[in-house]
Amino acid sequence: MRFCPDCGAPTALRQPPDDHRFRHVCTECETIHYQNPKLIVGAIPVWQDGRILLCRRAIEPRYGLWTLPAGFMENGETTAEAAARETLEEANARVKLDELYSLYNVAYMNQVHLFFRAQLLDLDFSPGVESLEVHLFEEADIPWDELAFRTVRGTLQHYFAERKKGDFHFSVTDLTPLAPK
Amino acid sequence: MRFCPDCGAPTALRQPPDDHRFRHVCTECETIHYQNPKLIVGAIPVWQDGRILLCRRAIEPRYGLWTLPAGFMENGETTAEAAARETLEEANARVKLDELYSLYNVAYMNQVHLFFRAQLLDLDFSPGVESLEVHLFEEADIPWDELAFRTVRGTLQHYFAERKKGDFHFSVTDLTPLAPK
Repeated sequence: MRFCPDCGAPTALRQPPDDHRFRHVCTECETIHYQNPKLIVGAIPVWQDGRILLCRRAIEPRYGLWTLPAGFMENGETTAEAAARETLEEANARVKLDELYSLYNVAYMNQVHLFFRAQLLDLDFSPGVESLEVHLFEEADIPWDELAFRTVRGTLQHYFAERKKGDFHFSVTDLTPLAPK
Repeated sequence: MRFCPDCGAPTALRQPPDDHRFRHVCTECETIHYQNPKLIVGAIPVWQDGRILLCRRAIEPRYGLWTLPAGFMENGETTAEAAARETLEEANARVKLDELYSLYNVAYMNQVHLFFRAQLLDLDFSPGVESLEVHLFEEADIPWDELAFRTVRGTLQHYFAERKKGDFHFSVTDLTPLAPK
């Protein structure tokens, strides 16, 4: 942030009184502009036979890789509404949402990822504009080496492990950056 | 947002291609500036004898009312780190965090609130700059009519009900606006 969104004057990085961090502060109107983590919310859409709906990304980052339907939560919606909307947008798929299933802290990206278990309601799905293709995968066919995000991989691993036991538990996981290759 | 934080030119509300919402778009550099919900994260600090630490707010909104320690999650931290930091800042109190306990969707405020169960580690607490006083309350003494936020009230009610049963479960709640009085 170089300019004040309120008045257009230049901003400066300053530590406000009683604050512990430097903030973007307007040099004219003195408004403090905070920056905070974003929520990415998605679904695990499961068909009646146990197959999982994945989307192959038509956008960066991770163009061409597979993901659970997920995206940035919008103002004015609940987390569950965000998960259902993203599933509709990316896969033109309708779901009935079940419990919130996983939360990932991705602190180094200033993100929190949430995934809900969900029941896919019909087979009338198709790629949305952000997807190259959408496909139902059995566990044995999940493209583990072509998944777009670690939070998707972790959520799917957790889901399949617990499904075998027939017992699902909400989990919280902290991710740290991968070492450079 | 009236001006572009990147280049300082005026912004306009426009619906980008393939988007379903109007966004603040720069009229010069064409950068799309998204606005997303914020996370408010807090703790339920419980002392060994079962009393709960509450803070009386020294800031608006809800100046003078009681709250669990909580505040806006910052970039670069996990949800648990945010809860511990807020407890330290508002009550100069150290906690060992337990499970994530409640999630509130406050869609009409563009917020998601999270509260963790937590063990207060010592009695050396005191008001931080955002608190008028901090106090340990037994259940019978909780100032129910002077609580600052519905998410704090709900979390405390849920906590005391489940503590009687000795069985804690993570819960998700959607809040809708209160009717005007």
